[in-house]
Amino acid sequence: MSKSTSGNYFEDFRVGQEFRHAVPRTITTGDVALYSALYGMRFSIQSSDAFAQSVGLDRAPLDNLLLFHVIFGKTVPDISLNAVANLGYSDCRILRQAYPGDSFTARSEIIGLRENSNGKTGIVYVRSTGYNQLGQEVLTFIRWVMVNKRHEAAPTPDAVVPQTPPSVAPQRLVVPEGIRFEDYDAAIAGSPYGFDDYRIGERVDHVDGMTIEEAEHQVATRLYQNTAKGHFDARLQRSSRFGRRIVYGGHIISLARSLSFNGLANAATVLAINSGRHVNPAAAGDTVYCWS
Amino acid sequence: MSKSTSGNYFEDFRVGQEFRHAVPRTITTGDVALYSALYGMRFSIQSSDAFAQSVGLDRAPLDNLLLFHVIFGKTVPDISLNAVANLGYSDCRILRQAYPGDSFTARSEIIGLRENSNGKTGIVYVRSTGYNQLGQEVLTFIRWVMVNKRHEAAPTPDAVVPQTPPSVAPQRLVVPEGIRFEDYDAAIAGSPYGFDDYRIGERVDHVDGMTIEEAEHQVATRLYQNTAKGHFDARLQRSSRFGRRIVYGGHIISLARSLSFNGLANAATVLAINSGRHVNPAAAGDTVYCWS
Amino acid sequence: MSKSTSGNYFEDFRVGQEFRHAVPRTITTGDVALYSALYGMRFSIQSSDAFAQSVGLDRAPLDNLLLFHVIFGKTVPDISLNAVANLGYSDCRILRQAYPGDSFTARSEIIGLRENSNGKTGIVYVRSTGYNQLGQEVLTFIRWVMVNKRHEAAPTPDAVVPQTPPSVAPQRLVVPEGIRFEDYDAAIAGSPYGFDDYRIGERVDHVDGMTIEEAEHQVATRLYQNTAKGHFDARLQRSSRFGRRIVYGGHIISLARSLSFNGLANAATVLAINSGRHVNPAAAGDTVYCWS
Repeated sequence: MSKSTSGNYFEDFRVGQEFRHAVPRTITTGDVALYSALYGMRFSIQSSDAFAQSVGLDRAPLDNLLLFHVIFGKTVPDISLNAVANLGYSDCRILRQAYPGDSFTARSEIIGLRENSNGKTGIVYVRSTGYNQLGQEVLTFIRWVMVNKRHEAAPTPDAVVPQTPPSVAPQRLVVPEGIRFEDYDAAIAGSPYGFDDYRIGERVDHVDGMTIEEAEHQVATRLYQNTAKGHFDARLQRSSRFGRRIVYGGHIISLARSLSFNGLANAATVLAINSGRHVNPAAAGDTVYCWS
Repeated sequence: MSKSTSGNYFEDFRVGQEFRHAVPRTITTGDVALYSALYGMRFSIQSSDAFAQSVGLDRAPLDNLLLFHVIFGKTVPDISLNAVANLGYSDCRILRQAYPGDSFTARSEIIGLRENSNGKTGIVYVRSTGYNQLGQEVLTFIRWVMVNKRHEAAPTPDAVVPQTPPSVAPQRLVVPEGIRFEDYDAAIAGSPYGFDDYRIGERVDHVDGMTIEEAEHQVATRLYQNTAKGHFDARLQRSSRFGRRIVYGGHIISLARSLSFNGLANAATVLAINSGRHVNPAAAGDTVYCWS
Repeated sequence: MSKSTSGNYFEDFRVGQEFRHAVPRTITTGDVALYSALYGMRFSIQSSDAFAQSVGLDRAPLDNLLLFHVIFGKTVPDISLNAVANLGYSDCRILRQAYPGDSFTARSEIIGLRENSNGKTGIVYVRSTGYNQLGQEVLTFIRWVMVNKRHEAAPTPDAVVPQTPPSVAPQRLVVPEGIRFEDYDAAIAGSPYGFDDYRIGERVDHVDGMTIEEAEHQVATRLYQNTAKGHFDARLQRSSRFGRRIVYGGHIISLARSLSFNGLANAATVLAINSGRHVNPAAAGDTVYCWS
């Protein structure tokens, strides 16, 4: 029997099944530099040790989306190596601020399964949680992903579809320990607009666009140790339904977060992702724009 | 009114106007690694902690061009977001050696303005200065840049054109504190040629060439948090006068500095840029050669 | 006479000739991050400080192939700047585990020379050794490379062809100091298969493929300060026998090592490379697969 794996298929999952994912990972200032260069991140707290200290932190913390991508990446070989599509996220919360030098691991539990009516695929609902080197939870999220069946005839369990909250309730948000904004310097943070200036329903056009290159999304996705085949193997993908390599959805999220600086420069840190869906795939050559 | 910005236009500037630029930035060994990988930098003092210590420094300092690009990048959103072209530099001096872990900010003052005769654009002269986390000046330079007018009919101030020195006078150069060359090992630095071996008027062909890829100049320019639109948005640029993304001029400067190693390996550190002009734009696919 | 160099040609070498190579180099966590992102490396000991500590090391050591590429890169300007092809390696051994922050230098000795029958090229055999900042040997290897003659008529020495061992004898392997596997957690390392599970003659298909982009191999090769012309200058290469830029062979080795994770996840560290040959060149657009 082969010692390499082609990943789990839909019929391999059971509700309640737990995974301790490979691979443990230390995130360093090197990873941060690469993350900055891939997206042009400009939020002050994550960009400058001196600025982070001015708001009560020891030094610049990790961008929480970088943390998300690294934890997400660990879940791929067990959950979504052969995914048709990553459909959505929900209830993603940052539970503890992470710093360069911290080492992370991840665990997941299958919380729902539903076969699709075509009998060829099914949807896997999974709760994943990241831990630091002290075993403290740093991040948790639900995602659901469409996974192929290995054999169309394989029996599958009864459908279990979990409730996914449409948004994270404010009282469940965790504010980074020690952070305070008395000496926050909005001028060098890049915008005069604070919390009170935004209205519900307001639309902010973030104006700028970025064109994606193959080398960029491949480098990013490998940085997250995300091995999903669709992102790397142009030869294999020529016979896929997209006909080419598809960009990791999280790459688009980080591009959008970066572009959102122009209009939301004081959005100091991401505490949660209420929910999200990948409505269309992206590929190299596409140009990404963003509004909030 | 929109909370995002499309940048300043020529008629928005006034002589004497001052800017404290966003975004504060710590440069780490991660940024240094990326800088090395983008250009293949091989100067020994910046490449090796052990070598830097052999010439009296605590460890490998930042490449001064990396410092320049980061300070330059901060000035872009306020000064040159919609620049037609960055025309030239002058009187660029490194005032203090910077190290990985230092945090930088930047300020600028408008020192000259001159509308072009076509009434559509004007030239902005600006003096920019970078500071470290202790508020010490690390770098200063003048640049001039052609900026569009928002409205052709907008009134503009009388022309003020500053004197820009053709070169930096030797007595204004700042030698890095503590540096000494008694134990300098020219053999492992890569060349037997020292100061006395070069003659005024001598021409050194640096031989090698490097072909630029889109992903490379985009990654570099985002590393510097430089958001000028012309470098990233292929879709928008198709309707520009160049028809494609243009490489950040500083990327070419660093490529040339890197190529100059072959013939100038003992050019230990850049103390100043006398003056420089971007005479032609560069784009991905171009191959850069260099001579001194 | 020019102060830049176009490298040594076959007739410039002598058996017994020694080189102290430029450029000294500190490898940082920044270089490690970039290396991870270029190949998607997932071996636990090199990926996580916490995991490395669980097997008795102070923190995550350098991937030994990254160390190999950096030492190799230093030898290029003296040995193979104008190489037609890098033909093979032998007796490559890691002599001491290296860590981020260590500074490296390299030396080589010419151990063999043999002119080819066409009179235009010859094969150079060289033993290269890397040292850390304490002068301790960290890595040694033999390689042989086909080098052009500058002048076809140039006289060349008698052929000396060294014995290159087909494999490294087990008693010559150096196990990293302090490493112990009592608490090794195979589950999060990514595979249940240990030493006892593999049989001689067993074939492991590593399944996955990666497509190479120009920006990726160029960034990698410059990270190693490897300046061989064939990798960077598309314009020059159009008139070469390949007609395009050729990927540094070591880039393929690292891609293969990374892909081998799927089936060899517990291959904790590379102690030696028995021998290797580059049987065909690779170029951007190629997709790399691997089996063991």
